Amino acid sequence: MDFHSDNAAGVHPAVLAAVAEAAGPLPDAYDSDPWSSRLDSAFSTLFEAPVRVFPVPSGTAANALALAAMVPPWGGILAHVEAHIEVDEAGAVPFFTHGASHLLVEGEAGKLTVEALEARFARRRGDVHQVQPAALTLTNATECGTVYTPAEVAALAAFAKARGLRVHMDGARFANAVARLGCTPAELSWRAGVDILSFGCIKNGGMTSDAILCFTPELAKTLPVRRKRAGMMPSKGRFAAAQLLALIEGGTWLQNAARANALADRLAAAAGPRLLWPVEANSLFLRLTPAEKAALRKEGFGFYDWELAGPDAARLVVRWDQDTAAVDALASRLAALS
Amino acid sequence: MDFHSDNAAGVHPAVLAAVAEAAGPLPDAYDSDPWSSRLDSAFSTLFEAPVRVFPVPSGTAANALALAAMVPPWGGILAHVEAHIEVDEAGAVPFFTHGASHLLVEGEAGKLTVEALEARFARRRGDVHQVQPAALTLTNATECGTVYTPAEVAALAAFAKARGLRVHMDGARFANAVARLGCTPAELSWRAGVDILSFGCIKNGGMTSDAILCFTPELAKTLPVRRKRAGMMPSKGRFAAAQLLALIEGGTWLQNAARANALADRLAAAAGPRLLWPVEANSLFLRLTPAEKAALRKEGFGFYDWELAGPDAARLVVRWDQDTAAVDALASRLAALS
Amino acid sequence: MDFHSDNAAGVHPAVLAAVAEAAGPLPDAYDSDPWSSRLDSAFSTLFEAPVRVFPVPSGTAANALALAAMVPPWGGILAHVEAHIEVDEAGAVPFFTHGASHLLVEGEAGKLTVEALEARFARRRGDVHQVQPAALTLTNATECGTVYTPAEVAALAAFAKARGLRVHMDGARFANAVARLGCTPAELSWRAGVDILSFGCIKNGGMTSDAILCFTPELAKTLPVRRKRAGMMPSKGRFAAAQLLALIEGGTWLQNAARANALADRLAAAAGPRLLWPVEANSLFLRLTPAEKAALRKEGFGFYDWELAGPDAARLVVRWDQDTAAVDALASRLAALS
Amino acid sequence: MDFHSDNAAGVHPAVLAAVAEAAGPLPDAYDSDPWSSRLDSAFSTLFEAPVRVFPVPSGTAANALALAAMVPPWGGILAHVEAHIEVDEAGAVPFFTHGASHLLVEGEAGKLTVEALEARFARRRGDVHQVQPAALTLTNATECGTVYTPAEVAALAAFAKARGLRVHMDGARFANAVARLGCTPAELSWRAGVDILSFGCIKNGGMTSDAILCFTPELAKTLPVRRKRAGMMPSKGRFAAAQLLALIEGGTWLQNAARANALADRLAAAAGPRLLWPVEANSLFLRLTPAEKAALRKEGFGFYDWELAGPDAARLVVRWDQDTAAVDALASRLAALS
Repeated sequence: MDFHSDNAAGVHPAVLAAVAEAAGPLPDAYDSDPWSSRLDSAFSTLFEAPVRVFPVPSGTAANALALAAMVPPWGGILAHVEAHIEVDEAGAVPFFTHGASHLLVEGEAGKLTVEALEARFARRRGDVHQVQPAALTLTNATECGTVYTPAEVAALAAFAKARGLRVHMDGARFANAVARLGCTPAELSWRAGVDILSFGCIKNGGMTSDAILCFTPELAKTLPVRRKRAGMMPSKGRFAAAQLLALIEGGTWLQNAARANALADRLAAAAGPRLLWPVEANSLFLRLTPAEKAALRKEGFGFYDWELAGPDAARLVVRWDQDTAAVDALASRLAALS
Repeated sequence: MDFHSDNAAGVHPAVLAAVAEAAGPLPDAYDSDPWSSRLDSAFSTLFEAPVRVFPVPSGTAANALALAAMVPPWGGILAHVEAHIEVDEAGAVPFFTHGASHLLVEGEAGKLTVEALEARFARRRGDVHQVQPAALTLTNATECGTVYTPAEVAALAAFAKARGLRVHMDGARFANAVARLGCTPAELSWRAGVDILSFGCIKNGGMTSDAILCFTPELAKTLPVRRKRAGMMPSKGRFAAAQLLALIEGGTWLQNAARANALADRLAAAAGPRLLWPVEANSLFLRLTPAEKAALRKEGFGFYDWELAGPDAARLVVRWDQDTAAVDALASRLAALS
Repeated sequence: MDFHSDNAAGVHPAVLAAVAEAAGPLPDAYDSDPWSSRLDSAFSTLFEAPVRVFPVPSGTAANALALAAMVPPWGGILAHVEAHIEVDEAGAVPFFTHGASHLLVEGEAGKLTVEALEARFARRRGDVHQVQPAALTLTNATECGTVYTPAEVAALAAFAKARGLRVHMDGARFANAVARLGCTPAELSWRAGVDILSFGCIKNGGMTSDAILCFTPELAKTLPVRRKRAGMMPSKGRFAAAQLLALIEGGTWLQNAARANALADRLAAAAGPRLLWPVEANSLFLRLTPAEKAALRKEGFGFYDWELAGPDAARLVVRWDQDTAAVDALASRLAALS
Repeated sequence: MDFHSDNAAGVHPAVLAAVAEAAGPLPDAYDSDPWSSRLDSAFSTLFEAPVRVFPVPSGTAANALALAAMVPPWGGILAHVEAHIEVDEAGAVPFFTHGASHLLVEGEAGKLTVEALEARFARRRGDVHQVQPAALTLTNATECGTVYTPAEVAALAAFAKARGLRVHMDGARFANAVARLGCTPAELSWRAGVDILSFGCIKNGGMTSDAILCFTPELAKTLPVRRKRAGMMPSKGRFAAAQLLALIEGGTWLQNAARANALADRLAAAAGPRLLWPVEANSLFLRLTPAEKAALRKEGFGFYDWELAGPDAARLVVRWDQDTAAVDALASRLAALS
């Protein structure tokens, strides 16, 4: 009955089994184990291109380390005003980048457009007095539960690259975007111009590890030392690797996301005109009066107020392992409210 | 047969069981779970005093975050020349502290003395031009496999506190030190003047989490936001907490360390005059000629060269789950060499 | 004929004389000289309250060091979207603060309002995941050539202080604001709630030094070491101090600003409806077509395009030593255009 | 009668005249002035090679910015244990580099040797766990008043370059070294392998500016934005440039240094066996008992205790404008003591 966050979801049995399998002793530590050694090739297969993989303990770590590999301390990062890095990561990006600036841009339903970026550039100068943009970051699926298509990503990335910028994608819910769009992981990432992808697993059946996927070899050069120096090179690296492999090698990551998306669709259909934005992943944003919120909560449904969208907004997130009955119960209640 | 590092040891069954037990879904994320909620009280019981506990994904993270909570960006940290923070953490401390300096002091067998600290202070000035010491860090058990007694820690901490410094202990192998000394955890930490302890679990049967234990309440104030900003506040915090609880609540942490210490003693007895320093924890440092090293490795024994102690030095570390037969085999070989 | 920037103005004769007078040898270096020793008392007299004074080599340095003394690395700084720290200081604030974030707020004519700040707060949460505001910065006179009155500053500062925030004022043109308002320096700074003021001199007849004025003693504690560590504690500190004293001790600072303001008024009267905002200090912002800009430049008038206000905007700044005839010539031309 | 520091010396008349000449208004600000524009060519002439020049307000700023242009945040800087950056700059290097580490090496009379560097390297590993050296810094003249010859610099630089390191020279007293050695500035800098030189002027007749001289073009790329972001790009850049030009264009810098060196020689001859190290620039380090120090101070001679060299050490520095009679008086007293 809880729709607060997919962060509180359970761990997929395949992940748990993989962790158990990795629990025995090994000759050597850090990344010198069979699981860590297989990471690059497994993700390279999945993404149909050479990928360097760096497991990290959170999505915040993935985003901040990835951007640090792209942006100098004095650089700027073009981001949506509601980007997770701006709203919910406590300044991790300026910490890991040694002071890079977020250059925020508005956009409907959590999405940036080329026009908005152009307008932003028109008001800037290229001299030493101004923070110069060095990267563009896109969240996909977005913080508003919408998705960028491969074509949209490609257009934004092309704009960025024409100006010498790198392109990062916050893919905390990349699986949900791929599942929704029916595209390949490659189409939504490096083929569209993404240099580094923060690949979310924890929300999607994982346990303690997300990953940085680097498609552009020169950007991978500093990541090993940045990761070590950030205290994120675990001495028992096999556990992070085993989780990631368990999710991707059998396709579980995509099945989990597809299920959550489908259940979110049921809620969306029920919520109808209350929806703030189209439901394209596993999150819904609704208008609910205080009385309606209270009533739902009294019945046991958990969800967050969403201050960013005003005092009567609410966010509901469907998990990969959400109980179907709970979804149906909530759908009935939402339909009744409408 | 491998004595490279306790970092490559296995995971204790109790830890694995605890992780499995925590694998189901929860209402809320981050630290809002029954395991995380119990951490402070469980460690407070073990240490006989109020403790704030912050799980982190590595010992490097524990040391660097702990020191960042104690030392301003312009401060200095008195440390042994062979301290792990100086030798093996890739500059994590200046990263997390925003530039604090290590003020290194020499000392026999990995240990600092009050006399050496006094000599260091005599050569310094207190003005704005010099980096002023703000903390003292001690590693216990030390990087040389020796231990500080509670009285030694107390004397060093008293020296530090008289000069306004905070005291940190790198306890990656704190369990081994406590097991060796037969003292209480309290006696070797806050009762001796330690403000924050990096409490190692991963080497000692854990999986993916060590912990910062903060005994001095005012130093805990900034740790939540520092940890979040460093990408180390996991959305599924229960897994770190469950591991830590599994190790300490039944005394497993101490049993594991005691076993490793005892096996290290067998090797020490066999190595005799080859030992560089007394064996007081689970590590041995030996003189071995290149031919001797090669012979041992050919027989399957794994261990590191130890450049810091010269070209013919070697380090052997005994793990909590080291095979007894392997220890006995190595002991025989060492005895035969002597 | 040049109206690009007061940064290119000349040095006031009193400043030059003071520098020459300080040129001889002294017994000791850094701040151990008669000029530096007199700084605190001279500014305390001018501001009718105890002030700690820290000379710095630029306004950027003043703003960034001042904010670093107020805001932790993970803190936020509420600022106008066109604040100099955001638009023209190349990320100096995140550099000196070790990563603090600008939390930008819109406002007409370069000015923040309590209502806008309230709206900003309503959309935020107070938890560890979000950057928490730690300071409010106001520029006075603003980047748009307008001024905050003492009452306006007091209202904004009261809002900030009620939420535990510190208050900084970027006073690169503080002299122009005081001269315009006819208030005392105290009324526009600490009496209105300002904790630290960046006091501009270089634009106003100075040579190489601006100053940080700290009214809140506890915020001054870290400034000496921060300034030293930033390479801004000059070994011949007497030259910065002598300049600052020369400007303030005889009232020159206020006379210079008043003259520039008065000349700007002449231009404002001539520009009439072309003005984007009221002219309340020594800067004017005009609508000018490309043809008009080109014509004026051809006649020798220098000024900047002002991209922030759109493609047909221009900024003209009047200096303390601007030639009267040049002002009158430009006023005639502007009047003719209208 | 004061021998505390050349930092407290007077300003050379040519510098003062140059500053006065630059005092008038200009069309544009920052580095857009005739003096700043001439800097690169003037220093290129002096050094017989293309040089990029960046004026900065202190030697600390010069060293820290120069090293930041060479060393990543996770890099190490090989330096003498008594290097000014370690002993007297309050952690400026870790601030500007975002956390680079000093890797200290001992050496007689303030000088590093290739042998000592080799020993240091022998004890290190090249893996991701250790801070990897990225630069070597030499102070010339050294903090002990000795000098490296061009051949010595070349040998050390060759060692560094063979390992991929950059080479920095702290030339706070570079003029004194050149004057002593009778070599060209080129021979003691880029021809010997120096990539960036901190060129001291303030101690040697300047007023408020030292300079970074960059001989290696690729290292100059980030210096403009680093300097701006550090608040060290002055809006009236002409004053720094005018000082530097005034000192170098007529050879004053070398005459000033030669005079100070010659007077230091007189003192050295008188001090005889009390000297700790050879006097090769303008500083002397002596053994003096507390009673002897007190007696000299009572007679009006000013100088510092030198804790680094023990409780009975003293440092005396001769300035470019030191009074000859004072030197002779002190020489007599020292001779009488011996």
